[in-house]
Amino acid sequence: MEKHIVIIGAGPAGQEAALKATKLGAKVTLIEKGELGGVCLNCGCIPSKTWLSCAHEFASLKEIAKYSTKEQELSGLTASYDFSKIQERRKNVIMRLKRGLEFLYKSAKINVIKGEAKIKDNKTVIANEQEITFDALILACGSMAFYPPAFEKYKDKLLDNSKVFNLEKLPKTITILGGGAIGCEFAYFFNALGVKVVLVEKLPAIVQVMGQDISRAVKTSLEKSGITIKTGIGAKDLKIDGENKIVILENGEEISSEEVLIALGRTVDLSALNLEVLNINYDRKGVKVDPQTMLIRDNIYAIGDITGLSLLAHAASAQAQAAVNHILTGKGSYDNNLIPTVLYIHPEAASIGLTKEKASFPVKAHKSFYLANGRALSQNESDGFAQILTEESTGKIVGAQIVGAQAGELIHLVALAIKNKNTLEDFSNMVFAHPTLAEVLRDASLK
Amino acid sequence: MEKHIVIIGAGPAGQEAALKATKLGAKVTLIEKGELGGVCLNCGCIPSKTWLSCAHEFASLKEIAKYSTKEQELSGLTASYDFSKIQERRKNVIMRLKRGLEFLYKSAKINVIKGEAKIKDNKTVIANEQEITFDALILACGSMAFYPPAFEKYKDKLLDNSKVFNLEKLPKTITILGGGAIGCEFAYFFNALGVKVVLVEKLPAIVQVMGQDISRAVKTSLEKSGITIKTGIGAKDLKIDGENKIVILENGEEISSEEVLIALGRTVDLSALNLEVLNINYDRKGVKVDPQTMLIRDNIYAIGDITGLSLLAHAASAQAQAAVNHILTGKGSYDNNLIPTVLYIHPEAASIGLTKEKASFPVKAHKSFYLANGRALSQNESDGFAQILTEESTGKIVGAQIVGAQAGELIHLVALAIKNKNTLEDFSNMVFAHPTLAEVLRDASLK
Repeated sequence: MEKHIVIIGAGPAGQEAALKATKLGAKVTLIEKGELGGVCLNCGCIPSKTWLSCAHEFASLKEIAKYSTKEQELSGLTASYDFSKIQERRKNVIMRLKRGLEFLYKSAKINVIKGEAKIKDNKTVIANEQEITFDALILACGSMAFYPPAFEKYKDKLLDNSKVFNLEKLPKTITILGGGAIGCEFAYFFNALGVKVVLVEKLPAIVQVMGQDISRAVKTSLEKSGITIKTGIGAKDLKIDGENKIVILENGEEISSEEVLIALGRTVDLSALNLEVLNINYDRKGVKVDPQTMLIRDNIYAIGDITGLSLLAHAASAQAQAAVNHILTGKGSYDNNLIPTVLYIHPEAASIGLTKEKASFPVKAHKSFYLANGRALSQNESDGFAQILTEESTGKIVGAQIVGAQAGELIHLVALAIKNKNTLEDFSNMVFAHPTLAEVLRDASLK
Repeated sequence: MEKHIVIIGAGPAGQEAALKATKLGAKVTLIEKGELGGVCLNCGCIPSKTWLSCAHEFASLKEIAKYSTKEQELSGLTASYDFSKIQERRKNVIMRLKRGLEFLYKSAKINVIKGEAKIKDNKTVIANEQEITFDALILACGSMAFYPPAFEKYKDKLLDNSKVFNLEKLPKTITILGGGAIGCEFAYFFNALGVKVVLVEKLPAIVQVMGQDISRAVKTSLEKSGITIKTGIGAKDLKIDGENKIVILENGEEISSEEVLIALGRTVDLSALNLEVLNINYDRKGVKVDPQTMLIRDNIYAIGDITGLSLLAHAASAQAQAAVNHILTGKGSYDNNLIPTVLYIHPEAASIGLTKEKASFPVKAHKSFYLANGRALSQNESDGFAQILTEESTGKIVGAQIVGAQAGELIHLVALAIKNKNTLEDFSNMVFAHPTLAEVLRDASLK
């Protein structure tokens, strides 16, 4: 008999689960209290990449100008961006993708309910005062910006990944708290459009999760572009002084700026779900699931940010696949190690699998540089490197770090090699088109 | 005992053979009568991609201008390119790569001789009046533009892939004969910089080798950008009329333009080698080799354009690997089916493996569109599609055609999947970073 799967939350996790489940023949009800697409589409991946692309386009005018008879004039237009048009482009991209989603849901005959969901018992959910029975329930409620206690009281006056998109004009100065991917991407964006940026990260390194090779290269490139980066020190307090916000660091140092953006991690709020009725515990980091099947208990699953396994949209999608497979076929195998990470600044950065620091066995690093890559040189994008890590004893590829043009696209090649358990030799025997950026990976594999 | 391999020709084929052979412990002498890097580096892949990148940068100003407060001013600078600076950039890229090559040869202790080579017997080559004995000889002499008899007499007044780089300024109008990759790329380049372009292709379709799906899409996009394309008709003659060259088509139609570029295929000239002494036959297409090992006979090999197997630099490199492996290990396995092809226009196009037309067994096409891709939309690059072909009976991936942003990079993902004998399901189970252009391949794999 057709199973009925109820999914709470229509972000990347819920979306993937809904489409996969209907494809496998299940009946699906998808409940969303906010906007279809969740944080990713509305105030995360997609709008930020649109902003970043705009910023990069204007920043690139300086380079293009070098080949113009009107170098000064063209170079001078770097600051001519019309922020209202950038905002329009952002809205337009979101709208087009949202229409696509609505079309997909309609085609797949997915029942989409807009409203808050509340669990009644292990068979029933209530949404819009309507009781919906389920065979399996998937929680995919997502996360929001985390404000440490010292900053929470100023929440209305601070920016985060979501509120930042409501800006009507760009500030002259901004302090960004948090040097993870979100912090670094907004730092790149604001700086590229002429905003003076200070980035504060409590850990010894920014984007530490991507490994120290990437971390160092990204720090160097962001600093070179004019961003002030302070690592190894946290912010402990805030004062408001007229139009200025003053961040107070742990050592007492004060940083004054027009805006402050909080990018200090994420938090989840599952209180409205009424999980107590199922005796399921949760905290601000979410709920505990089996890391392969996403099962919480019995017929209740969680996927996406609320599992605490990853905060990436595509990890959420992969978890959705695993959960749905487990519900409908009894098999489900999410692997948290094969999730690529991309940092959408210029030059771009991306990593997959192990880093030198994370490896628990001897690894060998095979490194090459964009400087020797014909396509990179011809495109004036010769900054960066590619590094492939192999298990020393077997030669098997176990990870990669790339900083440079199209890193976020190229990383998939290594991801597929790892998935296929390829050795470095297998990989280097593939024919790479010449000249392509991908050859930087071939070069690495020959080192 | 150490084997001595003599290689004639230091283009991509000879380069790869030399570096691979020394890596495997052989002694190598590399003889080149022209410039290190061959056609590819000096008047092929690399300079053309540099030109194309410049052209694309200036063409992109129109799009960037849409987000500027000074739209008209910025958009107006599209034609402000300084051709002498573009030429300088081209020379600079070539110089940097050439220095890299010289460094590699020096590090690998490869004996590089600049001069013409002549075969004395099956153990000896003469270059610069010096006799060099070899255990194995690899011919890698490359090719040059082919001028049909009707045009050969005007050779001095016509452009080809090589002579075009000597232009001191751009013409106002150009006629390009030949709608293969070279013809289409130069058409894109000249048109993007404001030159009026007519492209003539005798076959019913341009870039036919990449399959009809790509061919049609490329034609549409080139025409949309303002290029006049005539297919299914050849050029039969030429007249010179003062500053104008007049191409006469088979139907008598005349096309007048300032310049004419010949891109009608390639030809080889092996006459100086003295191959007669080894009783090896050749013609204008080259010599016959075993298509796996590149062996002509005994200890004589040929690789690259002169084998007639492919005219691509990376095919030449793969043939070099096969030949060197065969000489030094007895094994060599070049596969002419796993050579990606890239067309470096915008949107880019790339193909690998089979096309619908080439498949000799039932295949299924799985197609998706850039229009539904979040990164493509955010970057304003929503034109294009990705198509994966699978063998209907097994689900194995056997080919792909991509038209769209970064097609030439993304195609490697499918190349690696084919190499690993992946099914479509294997491929779609990989986790793709979101949002990336690579997801267009994931989407295709789910269709």
